[in-house]
Amino acid sequence: MASISVRTIDAATAVKAAQAAEEKAKEIGIAVCIAVYDSSSQLKAYLRMDGAPMLARDIAEDKAHTSASFRSPTHGLFDWISKDPPLMAGITQYPRFIVFGGGYPIVEDGELIGSIGISGGHYSQDMECCKAGLAAIGCGAE
Amino acid sequence: MASISVRTIDAATAVKAAQAAEEKAKEIGIAVCIAVYDSSSQLKAYLRMDGAPMLARDIAEDKAHTSASFRSPTHGLFDWISKDPPLMAGITQYPRFIVFGGGYPIVEDGELIGSIGISGGHYSQDMECCKAGLAAIGCGAE
Amino acid sequence: MASISVRTIDAATAVKAAQAAEEKAKEIGIAVCIAVYDSSSQLKAYLRMDGAPMLARDIAEDKAHTSASFRSPTHGLFDWISKDPPLMAGITQYPRFIVFGGGYPIVEDGELIGSIGISGGHYSQDMECCKAGLAAIGCGAE
Amino acid sequence: MASISVRTIDAATAVKAAQAAEEKAKEIGIAVCIAVYDSSSQLKAYLRMDGAPMLARDIAEDKAHTSASFRSPTHGLFDWISKDPPLMAGITQYPRFIVFGGGYPIVEDGELIGSIGISGGHYSQDMECCKAGLAAIGCGAE
Repeated sequence: MASISVRTIDAATAVKAAQAAEEKAKEIGIAVCIAVYDSSSQLKAYLRMDGAPMLARDIAEDKAHTSASFRSPTHGLFDWISKDPPLMAGITQYPRFIVFGGGYPIVEDGELIGSIGISGGHYSQDMECCKAGLAAIGCGAE
Repeated sequence: MASISVRTIDAATAVKAAQAAEEKAKEIGIAVCIAVYDSSSQLKAYLRMDGAPMLARDIAEDKAHTSASFRSPTHGLFDWISKDPPLMAGITQYPRFIVFGGGYPIVEDGELIGSIGISGGHYSQDMECCKAGLAAIGCGAE
Repeated sequence: MASISVRTIDAATAVKAAQAAEEKAKEIGIAVCIAVYDSSSQLKAYLRMDGAPMLARDIAEDKAHTSASFRSPTHGLFDWISKDPPLMAGITQYPRFIVFGGGYPIVEDGELIGSIGISGGHYSQDMECCKAGLAAIGCGAE
Repeated sequence: MASISVRTIDAATAVKAAQAAEEKAKEIGIAVCIAVYDSSSQLKAYLRMDGAPMLARDIAEDKAHTSASFRSPTHGLFDWISKDPPLMAGITQYPRFIVFGGGYPIVEDGELIGSIGISGGHYSQDMECCKAGLAAIGCGAE
């Protein structure tokens, strides 16, 4: 046996999560970029809403990348990093490492299958959109 | 008057094109990456099907980028480049410039509004998927 | 209908704004880099004055990118970010996100049509140059 | 059900393949770089032998990336690309796409679980090293 088995979000579910997040963003009245990553931290689905800020394009992906990497919502990372001066000084500026809200892991039966990252509104709004995406695919926000 | 008005594909249409292309890929039996760009040559929607080759991830975007840039299908570019030795030697290796099939401009009422780029199958298959995406949104392949 | 209509700064106006900003920089006695972006946050016009610092080359673009993305002058972003610890720790070091002065959105009839970013002097001087550029094309600084 | 299950090479097996390839390289008398990728086309194990050419560093990875993407040995890709002018002009220079020997997919029970890419000798020697690596983990060269 030379391999392990891993689970990863399927394309249809990734699209479903992105579309539910988009609906929430419309409801809130913001335009966001939405990235869904798989469990290998690679892009699976992406949507840039009309009028979303262009700088949000990469931030959405980076939030998903951070969440899939550490199986943690991005805002959760800030809580412990902020108490650790070397990390606070160092890792907050590491490329693609995001410490503010708007990224969540996607977990199924206790196993990481992907992540969602959203950027475009205030991060508290981005978080609401993420949670709507997670709810639509039957995953709670960890 | 300090500005011009440009048209650009909306998010819902971008998703619709991507999903129709995905359906065609399933029908053919291939797994592809699908990128829809807007008229400013920026990513609007993206879908990586389960099992699509990872190298196709960027090629799909680059085909869309090339098609949106030159309002030409990518395979059409090869036809005239191949008769021009300096271009043939030079531009074929320029970053993000793709000369084989699988990228198409999206044109509405004679105006470029975006592009679609697909990679994962042979380029003749990728082209079929593009055409299915264009047909679904009422745009013919130019 | 598969598209939306967006307004974006035209080339002649972009040049006019850049040249007015250059005049102001000469008057102040500084050498700056000037970037004008369109409403899709893409470079439309650029001018590097004789003697401008090379590090300013990208900063000018990034100020324009930030302003076009968030429809806010760059210095205005610092005001609210500085009160929000996770954003202060995180987004201030995000690539291309600038929180000090010298970037302004360009707005016509209430619609974002582009942005201007200037770097080379102290940011308070860069801001003066931006405002001269905006005034020359009949747009107030938001 | 929101996910699919995929198999991917485990770390111990990746190291085993790399070490067997290294043994073969020593036997031949060359110094190579060895990259083992997982089924998501991400680096799993890497070894740069003493004296290996630095340019081989990335080529080894890119051979693995190409093989994992297309489930094909890199030299096999050249055979059909060379008969197709647009692909020959275009994809041979695509970043990370390698068409000469030294990359192989790793397949277990008919399923892709990763790939191995080696660079440093002539590609025919690199291929010998790959095959030694595959043999050591019970996978034949496809």
